[in-house]
Amino acid sequence: MELYNYFRSSASYRVRIALALKGLDYDYRAVHLQKNEHLAESYAAVSAARLVPALVDGAHTITQSLAIIEYLEETHPHPPLLPATPVERARVRALALDIACEIHPIDNLRVLRYLTRDMHVSEDDKNRWYRHWVETGLEVVESQLALEPATFCHGDTPTLADCTLVPQIFNAQRMDCRLDHVPHVMRVFDACMKLDAFEQTRPERCPDAS
Amino acid sequence: MELYNYFRSSASYRVRIALALKGLDYDYRAVHLQKNEHLAESYAAVSAARLVPALVDGAHTITQSLAIIEYLEETHPHPPLLPATPVERARVRALALDIACEIHPIDNLRVLRYLTRDMHVSEDDKNRWYRHWVETGLEVVESQLALEPATFCHGDTPTLADCTLVPQIFNAQRMDCRLDHVPHVMRVFDACMKLDAFEQTRPERCPDAS
Repeated sequence: MELYNYFRSSASYRVRIALALKGLDYDYRAVHLQKNEHLAESYAAVSAARLVPALVDGAHTITQSLAIIEYLEETHPHPPLLPATPVERARVRALALDIACEIHPIDNLRVLRYLTRDMHVSEDDKNRWYRHWVETGLEVVESQLALEPATFCHGDTPTLADCTLVPQIFNAQRMDCRLDHVPHVMRVFDACMKLDAFEQTRPERCPDAS
Repeated sequence: MELYNYFRSSASYRVRIALALKGLDYDYRAVHLQKNEHLAESYAAVSAARLVPALVDGAHTITQSLAIIEYLEETHPHPPLLPATPVERARVRALALDIACEIHPIDNLRVLRYLTRDMHVSEDDKNRWYRHWVETGLEVVESQLALEPATFCHGDTPTLADCTLVPQIFNAQRMDCRLDHVPHVMRVFDACMKLDAFEQTRPERCPDAS
């Protein structure tokens, strides 16, 4: 398999964690978003949407990080990244979507660029925007984790929810977001970072980190 | 089952379609977002995240529209809303996420409110923002549909992707977005709207429509 990704893209990091948890080898293909490499013609052949990450598995290209992780779960079920029962699986997926739909998209690079370049929002207001969605969005995750405290987001092994949470915390720390109001979130984050799958795939350890 | 939802919430409409496609009965519970009913204390007991939709099934509450639809798929597999093979399932999920992660969150009500109330963006700029993310986001969906044209988003029966696409088009039409640049999208939309499951759950037909 080949993973087209960018070291600082949190959606890419989600997939790197999932691949590592499942012990799957892949070729790392760097696509530098800040240098607009995703907009190059050559990348359109990989991802029509020009988004990272994209996973190439034989003749097939899979896009969208959560769809990639579900695909890995179906094609390489062990160890599982989703629990056994439909209710538990729904809880894990909802936690992942609380981040992937409610926090991350509002703060991604193209949205921030549009704010400053097209809406002429100041750097300060842009940063306030960023922190607002991270800090309020993580409160929602915190309230869910507080309902059923466990070692990880759900239970005592990492799941799709942890693959999604950890990269969001890296972004939050990089942008100096407040995190002292989400102790369950940070406890889970610390538990994850003790695992090689999370630690060895972190952004600074990627081949394209700069 | 009980579905807490709001007639105009496109995430709610996704779930109404899925329930209708699967022929499942449920009690309709209206939560009026414009009147801030989701912020009432009574609703916190249903959804800590204070988001609609929320599906109550016996003792369990499921949140996040895509997690709810995956839950319905696992608990009521017929008719299926995901195809049979992992690659096809990944394509359908990625199409749904191209909308649910890349378009919808940036234009939802709380983000638009923050733009005007906290960032003091003008109504015109807010509307320009709205249309920008819908119109460019749908181009991505269009490019995916053009690769494998079919009656619906994927194949000749509706899937999770169609449940996600149709509500986004309703929003786009309500906000006068350009749609003539996405002919595959609109062809699929028209095919969906010929089905009762999409037509009879449309926003204006909901009990709380006003």
